[in-house]
Amino acid sequence: LTQGDQFGRLRVVLVRSRNPLNIGAAARAMSNFGFSCLRVVKPYEAGFREARSAVGASETLIRAEQYESVAEAVADCSLVVGTTSVGRRELQQPVERLDAGAALIREQLALGRVALLFGSEKIGLRNEDLSHCHWLMRIPTREAHRSMNLGQAVAVCLYELARGGSVAIGAGKPPVQKRRAPSRDIERLTMLLVDALQASGYLDARSAASDQKVRRLVRRLNLDAGDAEVLLGMVRQMLWKLEPRNSRA
Amino acid sequence: LTQGDQFGRLRVVLVRSRNPLNIGAAARAMSNFGFSCLRVVKPYEAGFREARSAVGASETLIRAEQYESVAEAVADCSLVVGTTSVGRRELQQPVERLDAGAALIREQLALGRVALLFGSEKIGLRNEDLSHCHWLMRIPTREAHRSMNLGQAVAVCLYELARGGSVAIGAGKPPVQKRRAPSRDIERLTMLLVDALQASGYLDARSAASDQKVRRLVRRLNLDAGDAEVLLGMVRQMLWKLEPRNSRA
Repeated sequence: LTQGDQFGRLRVVLVRSRNPLNIGAAARAMSNFGFSCLRVVKPYEAGFREARSAVGASETLIRAEQYESVAEAVADCSLVVGTTSVGRRELQQPVERLDAGAALIREQLALGRVALLFGSEKIGLRNEDLSHCHWLMRIPTREAHRSMNLGQAVAVCLYELARGGSVAIGAGKPPVQKRRAPSRDIERLTMLLVDALQASGYLDARSAASDQKVRRLVRRLNLDAGDAEVLLGMVRQMLWKLEPRNSRA
Repeated sequence: LTQGDQFGRLRVVLVRSRNPLNIGAAARAMSNFGFSCLRVVKPYEAGFREARSAVGASETLIRAEQYESVAEAVADCSLVVGTTSVGRRELQQPVERLDAGAALIREQLALGRVALLFGSEKIGLRNEDLSHCHWLMRIPTREAHRSMNLGQAVAVCLYELARGGSVAIGAGKPPVQKRRAPSRDIERLTMLLVDALQASGYLDARSAASDQKVRRLVRRLNLDAGDAEVLLGMVRQMLWKLEPRNSRA
């Protein structure tokens, strides 16, 4: 199975969402991270119709499947996970932190369909909804402000799922190693800079100590070949202009 | 420093955001993940006022600081990171994937203030904005649908920052790192260098493009506070000498 096939096995299930903007935001995050199957349970009808028929509604949203109960919406899934902002104490089911939970979901996606449930903006998932879940997952937010916006919660969960999923998403090209400037150029730059500092009066007289100070400074810049060349050109021009015979040009 | 103190050093900077809902969503995600300092640059005024005065507006939003330019908004930060949905190919600065970038930001938060920039909903950060950044960070979204909703992008970035937070910070790297120069000094150096390049004839005329080129070059030098000060002194003296009235001294 490719990663795309596996991601296609995830059902994002929004239960009793009221705000069409949040449903749209959930659909957008799904598309961003490569998930396509959106299910809604008892949405606020008018809002859902509106979100769906809006100009620019995403494919994911247009093809969303509507259900009358959580039971029906998760019927074809072999793992059902509910999201919650509530701490472990108050719950009757095991709670996994998002990073650990996402790893378990990824394992399961290699084998079959998984439903990930999100509750309504106001009250989240009810006990009845939670009872359909094998376990619960919590995004690690601050104790003092646990409850997240629905669209943001969906985005964060799907990011975490896709992040560890494989190297396919976003891995792309290896980091560009910069080609470091040869010492020859670095030393030429150093000497030109010393000359310019002297011509400008920054250095009174030349000394081994001041040369070394500038040399160490230039090395700390860690220049790549291109930048070294540009800086050489800049300092050369300034030095030329600093020479008395050219200063009136 | 506690983790809370370190998170307090992050400035989330929203540049030219138009939608008050997105500004509110960004503030909410900050509160969820324990970050408090929100800055807005040239927001759509009516929308920003509306979001701020809404019933239930968060503390974070009410205390948000408003700026007229990116330069001012990042002046006290020693690392400036821009977020982008664009791939590496089209950009002129290094791009880190969110997970790697977040680790670098956490390291820096142990030492000083960091700005994390988010662009407008429509066009993201412009080249002028990006030129103030040391490097860029990309959320690994699908090639076919890269661009995220602003509130969701903020949530995902802050989740990733907070997620590894305690582990990485607890590990306590030895403080061999250099104290980076604040952006205020880096920008002053940039402007002095541009003036000196113009006075020397290296630049014919001043333009936004040439300003940005020099700005990016200076950021690539990754200066620490001491070296920035030394270079400021050097360029200032050269500029003084390059001015015609001082050239005969």
